Amino acid sequence: MDQEAERDLSRLCVHTITTRPLDLETAVAEYASRGIRGITVWRDALQKTGAKRAGRIIREGGLDIVSLCRGGFFPSTDRKTRKSSIAGNLAALEEAHDAGAPLLVLVCGADPGQSPETSREQIKAGIEAILPRAAELGVRLAIEPLHPVYADTRSSINTMKQAIDMARYFDSSWLGVAVDVYHVWWDEELETAIDSCGRDGRLFAFHICDWKVPTGDILNDRGLMGEGCIDIRRIRGWMERSGFEGYNEVEIFSDIYWNLDQDRFLDMIVRAYLDHS
Amino acid sequence: MDQEAERDLSRLCVHTITTRPLDLETAVAEYASRGIRGITVWRDALQKTGAKRAGRIIREGGLDIVSLCRGGFFPSTDRKTRKSSIAGNLAALEEAHDAGAPLLVLVCGADPGQSPETSREQIKAGIEAILPRAAELGVRLAIEPLHPVYADTRSSINTMKQAIDMARYFDSSWLGVAVDVYHVWWDEELETAIDSCGRDGRLFAFHICDWKVPTGDILNDRGLMGEGCIDIRRIRGWMERSGFEGYNEVEIFSDIYWNLDQDRFLDMIVRAYLDHS
Repeated sequence: MDQEAERDLSRLCVHTITTRPLDLETAVAEYASRGIRGITVWRDALQKTGAKRAGRIIREGGLDIVSLCRGGFFPSTDRKTRKSSIAGNLAALEEAHDAGAPLLVLVCGADPGQSPETSREQIKAGIEAILPRAAELGVRLAIEPLHPVYADTRSSINTMKQAIDMARYFDSSWLGVAVDVYHVWWDEELETAIDSCGRDGRLFAFHICDWKVPTGDILNDRGLMGEGCIDIRRIRGWMERSGFEGYNEVEIFSDIYWNLDQDRFLDMIVRAYLDHS
Repeated sequence: MDQEAERDLSRLCVHTITTRPLDLETAVAEYASRGIRGITVWRDALQKTGAKRAGRIIREGGLDIVSLCRGGFFPSTDRKTRKSSIAGNLAALEEAHDAGAPLLVLVCGADPGQSPETSREQIKAGIEAILPRAAELGVRLAIEPLHPVYADTRSSINTMKQAIDMARYFDSSWLGVAVDVYHVWWDEELETAIDSCGRDGRLFAFHICDWKVPTGDILNDRGLMGEGCIDIRRIRGWMERSGFEGYNEVEIFSDIYWNLDQDRFLDMIVRAYLDHS
């Protein structure tokens, strides 16, 4: 790699949840000072300032706001809960618009009290209910397939194929797919699916981290790029070959890293990004 | 359910690992006294008596030996380890034959130091190396697809489709598939895959337990039937519709249940089997 490529951070984005201990202002300043160019904002990080002011802080800090995380969680055995979930998603769309985020990521949800098929029908109904408003506001929606280990309570959409099928059902340019290597790396059909999704113009986001061996906690022990068994560079290659030109978004849930000095952790993120993705 | 069906234990099998604290003699006696008809033996349970004597204990106790668990673990970045794994699998086949077990279950293995594709090539080579001896000994081999949460170190075969593809590659009646609800319940294509596998005559085994919500430990917190979110009865229905006539094998890894009085636990297994599978 030549020296320029070695320092190319122009497509690096970090999720606020990755550096959860930092408030939004600090996160923006710390990301920008390291040459990180994008930020994906989790909804909790908007609460203190409100969405509009958060958007201004980000723009004035010199960062692109890549997406808002996260909407979804549509299924429930309880009709009232389903209705209030749709209201919550509509509110998230307003927040995304107010903050200037062009994309809302959907973790679609699951309810272990019913079959996955029923949950998927409710996901479909939920997307149908919010998609028109997303288009009005100019905010795209990305379905993120979740690893099958989360099929009980977090998502009944567990493969790229399922996410693409759901996106295609609606035939709207406002609906696409978010690819997170943690969730899909094991899938034999990943390369083919990314290719197919790219031909549709539906590759909306790319999240990176690593699968640690062993993984101590299935939710909050994700690894820094290079720490685990995922060939991130190879998957990134498939994304780019399929026409994806967006950010590489570092999204890491980790009790270990949240307990680290976040300045030091951000330096590690930049290094790991350059070396392993 | 009429009274007879309500007491139908004729297809109930328990894995020795489910009641790990019991030695083989005790397990056989306790299973038989409750009307359990089948036993699947884990290799550690054969060590004390040797395979031949273990087979006699089981037959004299009135139980069918359903399978031996487990072979597999073929992939490794190290050539010597791959060679010794094949030797270990050949030894397991002798044990199965000596004990009178008609089937050896394969947990195929994975090595996080190489790509899943490479691991699958090594799995293929491993099966190729042992299949002729399996046929000579009259011991069938069953590929068990493992949940994608185990894709890092335990198996690069994570869906029914992959297991069936691998089995079909060899075109041998000695090679089939073991379906464990814990590993495949989340898969949208499960019903279709079971159907397709059944048409091939390759449904060799059916393992049951439940996916607890939440799951405290991804390896050793499996649930008793009815305790989690898997619709076991529905999947069993697909198996039977596809021609499966074998045992329903209760395979539960659980620190919680291993710490319970095993007599009480066996009563719970029988009750849960009748109520939820």
